[in-house]
Amino acid sequence: MTAEIFPKVKTIDLRKKHIGPSCKVFFSHDPIKIVRAKGQYMYDENGVRYLDCINNVAHVGHSHPMVVKAGAEQMELLNTNSRFLHDNLVQYAQRLQATLPEKLSVCYFVNSGSEANDLALRLAWEYTGHKDVITLDNAYHGHVSSLINISPYKFHQLANAEQSKSVHVALSPDLYRGNYRQDHPDPATAYADDVNNLIQKAHEKGHKVAAFIAESLQSCGGQVIPPAGYFQKVAQHVHRAGGLFIADEVQVGFGRVGTHFWAFQLQGEDFVPDIVTMGKPIGNGHPMSCVVTTREVAEAFKNSGMEYFNTFGGNPVSCAIGLAVLDVIEKEDLQGNALRVGGYLTRLLEQQKEKHPLVGDIRGRGLFVGAELVRDRVKLTPATAEAQDIIYKLKEQHILLSADGPHRNVLKFKPPMCFSEEDADMVVEKIDQILTVENKSLSLFSKTPG
Amino acid sequence: MTAEIFPKVKTIDLRKKHIGPSCKVFFSHDPIKIVRAKGQYMYDENGVRYLDCINNVAHVGHSHPMVVKAGAEQMELLNTNSRFLHDNLVQYAQRLQATLPEKLSVCYFVNSGSEANDLALRLAWEYTGHKDVITLDNAYHGHVSSLINISPYKFHQLANAEQSKSVHVALSPDLYRGNYRQDHPDPATAYADDVNNLIQKAHEKGHKVAAFIAESLQSCGGQVIPPAGYFQKVAQHVHRAGGLFIADEVQVGFGRVGTHFWAFQLQGEDFVPDIVTMGKPIGNGHPMSCVVTTREVAEAFKNSGMEYFNTFGGNPVSCAIGLAVLDVIEKEDLQGNALRVGGYLTRLLEQQKEKHPLVGDIRGRGLFVGAELVRDRVKLTPATAEAQDIIYKLKEQHILLSADGPHRNVLKFKPPMCFSEEDADMVVEKIDQILTVENKSLSLFSKTPG
Repeated sequence: MTAEIFPKVKTIDLRKKHIGPSCKVFFSHDPIKIVRAKGQYMYDENGVRYLDCINNVAHVGHSHPMVVKAGAEQMELLNTNSRFLHDNLVQYAQRLQATLPEKLSVCYFVNSGSEANDLALRLAWEYTGHKDVITLDNAYHGHVSSLINISPYKFHQLANAEQSKSVHVALSPDLYRGNYRQDHPDPATAYADDVNNLIQKAHEKGHKVAAFIAESLQSCGGQVIPPAGYFQKVAQHVHRAGGLFIADEVQVGFGRVGTHFWAFQLQGEDFVPDIVTMGKPIGNGHPMSCVVTTREVAEAFKNSGMEYFNTFGGNPVSCAIGLAVLDVIEKEDLQGNALRVGGYLTRLLEQQKEKHPLVGDIRGRGLFVGAELVRDRVKLTPATAEAQDIIYKLKEQHILLSADGPHRNVLKFKPPMCFSEEDADMVVEKIDQILTVENKSLSLFSKTPG
Repeated sequence: MTAEIFPKVKTIDLRKKHIGPSCKVFFSHDPIKIVRAKGQYMYDENGVRYLDCINNVAHVGHSHPMVVKAGAEQMELLNTNSRFLHDNLVQYAQRLQATLPEKLSVCYFVNSGSEANDLALRLAWEYTGHKDVITLDNAYHGHVSSLINISPYKFHQLANAEQSKSVHVALSPDLYRGNYRQDHPDPATAYADDVNNLIQKAHEKGHKVAAFIAESLQSCGGQVIPPAGYFQKVAQHVHRAGGLFIADEVQVGFGRVGTHFWAFQLQGEDFVPDIVTMGKPIGNGHPMSCVVTTREVAEAFKNSGMEYFNTFGGNPVSCAIGLAVLDVIEKEDLQGNALRVGGYLTRLLEQQKEKHPLVGDIRGRGLFVGAELVRDRVKLTPATAEAQDIIYKLKEQHILLSADGPHRNVLKFKPPMCFSEEDADMVVEKIDQILTVENKSLSLFSKTPG
């Protein structure tokens, strides 16, 4: 297979002509053409190597040979739908279940994080008979229409955004920039009380709450780590209202947080969501995802009388790939690596915070780390332009990083899980160099994003 | 890779334990375990060969070596998102575009027919600023929540079905069982007038129509072939109301109808939808799909200010597989084969209609053929139990066929496109034998589905 078919200028031209203009490329004024990738490295058409600090989909490393082999071998043998019995499907469900609390025992295999979150809503609506959904501010849960409705990260982009009356936006449990911060005596309770207030307000309007949904750690929302105990308290409020707790692990699951396999487990042993959704890393890039729930919720959904069939979901190829991803995580101790290298990276970034006033906050778990840039550590003025500038300068030095969060001022680290201490050294060293220059010329940057 | 991991009884047990009970297997009292497949044949764990008459996803034949090779080679090289430039993406978009009328020039790559239809609705809502959708009776457009709303095939399954106020159900343009039949002087106009009536009623309530959506040929709805000219007339009404025409080609596209590459083209050269959605056969089982629309619609969607990003959509592996599928269709003249073998199959089935009173109607285009079974050719009493009985008896003889439509009395033929005249002979011969016995003992069957 030829790696490059068209010269880059032709690729750009064809893309403008035939690909929906809402689908943006990275570094749009000078996009990167990637032709191959391996581990945590990507290569452009000239063989230039980029260090990938952002691709949480290529979870066990780009083009991992064990995953490729499992997919290719199964494709050769059989790829069909789940109307037929197949061992890959049930074996994979069993393996996934073994990573979860026992009561989360029933799987639905679908094709994307969006399909997973939409199905999670359908399960909650059917089980509870209620309609309303509570979501966190700045949340992103997917691109299908039902999820745009519960994604402030998206609907705030619309000029004429009209929020659905059955969607309620709770405070993001952000200890750095949110309503209740590090200095608050009990932010978990305070943020959970906000959810409870929304429930009460909904009840006053005659509405009923079907679900609270949150990423176990907010990703697009700005790498937000909710205080431990928050989910338990929210779950109490939501359950009392007859609703379900949906933990969205699409971005953060599969060992990325290092200490645990699932990010919701950071909240404590006593917390178990009613529904967990999975996505991105689950197939190392293969389009697949999963919803796991309890027997009770699954039976209620079945009893609605409506069959659920997903053409591609749970096909033997997807399941073979999913199994191989689990095998590699285990065999290469990638969860352990996330813990070790993530810890190392966080410490390096903490040193940057000591050194550079622009670095306001470092927060993360394992290989899910955010560095929030601010112009003023008291006012927390977002250093949006500076974050963009760093991203662009890193790109020139062949390092791929991105900035996100509501102010696009949080540097996001969520690399393939084979990321090494040397990689961490390299990216932080470059950031240090850029910040050193940046500090000297802070006033030169405009306040609008680059 | 071992083809079988668990004994069948264990597979069934694990499936009951860990797979959502809403996801049904074929022949639930004695399901089939398939371990490999090739061309139009599937093989169970004992090596028994089944002729596959229903798998329209395995479009170019199960486990086609060219498709497998393309996928495996690209997986080895690179699988990443469309934030980076890649030639597979633009080349594939260009190739797909070349099969379509020129004004359908902008592609969005997504992961399933459901994601495609949901995005089509989002495009229509954004372009028109309207909200209402007109759908056909018995239509099925996918499993995400927005599509359940426009799928009478699904929402009629619910005991307490509550139809959305912004969804209007038009008559299915069924010339056999519908309101206007073969004997009607101008069914195309009559059915289109029904759509126009719905538009007028919506307007009276102050509603505005964003889109009319229909499968180019209704599949789950009972293999319904709309009269030529119907889409043109509907499009006129819908455009006059400021709405768009969405042609759902998820089940019927990619040459299946034989004479044309897309089923909407059966309506005539003068018909071009505003949006076309694709799915199932597009990747021969690989989870992928596509929405194609006009530059105007795409620009309006972009101008909403909301970015559209799909994690897996348009990745280099999916595009390599999509390209290989197009190559195989061309190289093996599968569209021509669909025309020839589909015509042959239809003629054989017509002979069955002459011979067996139970066979009420044969309708189809290419390798998309339905045989509707009725107990009474005047009253058209659906022969539901008989259809189920035939399906089960064929299964015992290792032929996979299904029955669908609102009364589950239409035998559905939509086999892999490499289906041969010998295959057609075999399945029709078996049906003939079953019907011969059936005719003799018609009164013995109960009226409820088996």
